[in-house]
Amino acid sequence: MDRVLRIGLLGCGTVGGGVVTILDREADDITARTGAKLEITRIAVRDPAKVRGLPVDAAMYTDDPLSVVEADDIDMIVEVMGGIEPAGGYIRRALELGKPVVTANKELVAAQGPELYAAALAAGVDLAYEAAVAGAIPIIKPMKESLAGDRVTRIVGILNGTTNYILTRMSEEGADYDEVLADAQALGYAEADPTADVDGHDAAAKCAILASLAFDTAVHFDDVFREGIESVTATDIRTAARLGYVIKLVGIASEVDDRVAVRVHPAFLPREHPLASVRGSFNAIYVEAEYAGELMFYGRGAGALPTGSAIVGDVIDVARNLLQTARGASETQHRAKPIRPIDELQTQYYVLLDVEDETGVLAEVAQTFGAHGVSIAQVWQDGDADSAQLVLITHRALESNLRATVEALACSSSVRSVASVLRVESEVFTS
Amino acid sequence: MDRVLRIGLLGCGTVGGGVVTILDREADDITARTGAKLEITRIAVRDPAKVRGLPVDAAMYTDDPLSVVEADDIDMIVEVMGGIEPAGGYIRRALELGKPVVTANKELVAAQGPELYAAALAAGVDLAYEAAVAGAIPIIKPMKESLAGDRVTRIVGILNGTTNYILTRMSEEGADYDEVLADAQALGYAEADPTADVDGHDAAAKCAILASLAFDTAVHFDDVFREGIESVTATDIRTAARLGYVIKLVGIASEVDDRVAVRVHPAFLPREHPLASVRGSFNAIYVEAEYAGELMFYGRGAGALPTGSAIVGDVIDVARNLLQTARGASETQHRAKPIRPIDELQTQYYVLLDVEDETGVLAEVAQTFGAHGVSIAQVWQDGDADSAQLVLITHRALESNLRATVEALACSSSVRSVASVLRVESEVFTS
Repeated sequence: MDRVLRIGLLGCGTVGGGVVTILDREADDITARTGAKLEITRIAVRDPAKVRGLPVDAAMYTDDPLSVVEADDIDMIVEVMGGIEPAGGYIRRALELGKPVVTANKELVAAQGPELYAAALAAGVDLAYEAAVAGAIPIIKPMKESLAGDRVTRIVGILNGTTNYILTRMSEEGADYDEVLADAQALGYAEADPTADVDGHDAAAKCAILASLAFDTAVHFDDVFREGIESVTATDIRTAARLGYVIKLVGIASEVDDRVAVRVHPAFLPREHPLASVRGSFNAIYVEAEYAGELMFYGRGAGALPTGSAIVGDVIDVARNLLQTARGASETQHRAKPIRPIDELQTQYYVLLDVEDETGVLAEVAQTFGAHGVSIAQVWQDGDADSAQLVLITHRALESNLRATVEALACSSSVRSVASVLRVESEVFTS
Repeated sequence: MDRVLRIGLLGCGTVGGGVVTILDREADDITARTGAKLEITRIAVRDPAKVRGLPVDAAMYTDDPLSVVEADDIDMIVEVMGGIEPAGGYIRRALELGKPVVTANKELVAAQGPELYAAALAAGVDLAYEAAVAGAIPIIKPMKESLAGDRVTRIVGILNGTTNYILTRMSEEGADYDEVLADAQALGYAEADPTADVDGHDAAAKCAILASLAFDTAVHFDDVFREGIESVTATDIRTAARLGYVIKLVGIASEVDDRVAVRVHPAFLPREHPLASVRGSFNAIYVEAEYAGELMFYGRGAGALPTGSAIVGDVIDVARNLLQTARGASETQHRAKPIRPIDELQTQYYVLLDVEDETGVLAEVAQTFGAHGVSIAQVWQDGDADSAQLVLITHRALESNLRATVEALACSSSVRSVASVLRVESEVFTS
């Protein structure tokens, strides 16, 4: 007779429905793999009366999440409400009661990870959050466990499916941002309010979580430098393609001289890089480690069932530990590294300038770059009767110098406007 | 004061040296992440007197593996000797003594997995073998744990670095097999005796292990249908490229109508497939799961440090469990599926025929295909004054029918020889 472990579910939207569905459909295999029956027995939702068509008894629904957390007959909490509060309060309460928690809540983990890890450790129970980063892709567990004997040196991730979908379509169709975004919204690939996706907020939360694990230090959401894709134009993408690059919204975390640098922004990636061929709404995380070398993890970053798969994987892990009175690997933050400010970044840059179509412009522009210590690797002039454009790719330069250059260019009489500035990540791969 | 866990190392060749190096260099971080010091204290080697230049006391070396396994002061065994026996005997003895084992031994796990899993379960200790499949790539743990709530439907893996290196160079340089193999041997990418790599033996062992985990059933090395790359020619690769394919040695495991089909052979893969861009000695495993969708895991499949990284990851896992008197997830084989014979495979095929350059040949060849129930999707004729070749791509057909077709063609008066037959995997991806 298998033991029964009872799960309290907080939230039952798209992802919660995925969890319920998978636990129901795969019940037999899950019992065989876990050594216990896993049953959802209480579900907290905003409107318990709403018809959801899920294979659960209607009496399980309640509008009181705390009652689910505190119920004596609940062994484990699965939190899929999202948002920092009140979700964080329920999770802290569950841990306090010695109940393990599985969550998909990236905002919460990116904002309060260290406190939550400490609470779980103190309670001697698991806090699992595989689904918080890159949906179905196993990445938290590989970082915490498989790479526990290695030293991660850099992570480059495509961590947001909406923006990758938009950039892929812009790239393959030559279309403009606004046009593709509207279409993505109509097709359900982008939210009605896409801000958190397109401004890099969502990717930054995931990047903070990965950086914390990679470098054994607390990286908070606010530590992540962040730029979105709103200003990426069809011209930028065309120019990138001409030079052998694709533009991707990437999260890059690295350790440089004992400090941690974490940033999310659109970047030129070489077309040969494994990440460059990650299309549509797929996510991928490229990891460089001292001994393992280059690794990449690829898959679906969102969706009810992919995210549900990751959550149920965590639930089974937690259940296996519960049955043995054990817990999984702890996050360690023993290296407590400072964050390197973005000003000290050194990378290459792409700068697109609308300029006056007259002689001497290139010389003046080149002089401005040189005066700020930024050396130019490639330059050419485009344009027609009405306008002229200068495209420049710099050598590796200091972010603060590049910024000063751009400010000076913006005031230059021969530059009508600085149309685009994007980082060029030529050195993100070694193979 | 941290607890100390003492490791007995069986074998100290390339991979063993990698393990010693990583444990030494990363000792502080590993202690922080594990909660215990991990120390190698005994090492069994063939020649204890040999100078190895590793950071260990020469007194640790012994030529008696059993003394290492049985030593009272050894908490955990790491086996990197390779080969089925005597390695298997030492592992069984260690488990019998209640000592967990980490192994990189794919031959052994592919041959005796179920018995070993059962022995570890009975002893209540871990048997970990992440390094046995695809070197540094975390795949065993994701299969056993992250995907424990999902249902894997298919795995397609590039599981051998040597053959992928050879095929990549053949593909990119237009070179012939023998030429590239000789060069690969000179460069150390292929062994002096490359048989186990080029004939698919190594990939088949890994594929058996993955299939067992994916489908909760015992898949033995002998259950894997296997063809190597020795007969792949520059012409085959050129022809594939012309049709939009690349040739890769793949391991494919799938569940079809309640049976498990497992095969390793060179195959045409569509150029757009994520596996098609896996170059050189890299490995990758593409997994299709019911809920997670498509996943891919990419990285280095061999080498002292990549393989060492995977082993040390396992060692830390095992140590964390030892400290809690717990053990990791068990392999489950509760579904006990029969193996589908290769004769019942349905896929597409590429057939290259040297034919007489005379009218009526195509009609005769087409008639032969049709008579055996194999329908032709594409055909064209190449050739010059001396020779004529027919290239055919079939629609999906039954392997046994294709084989009968090829036998009939070989006896046909207008066919000089059947130059090549390769499987075409057009349907390995859904995106």
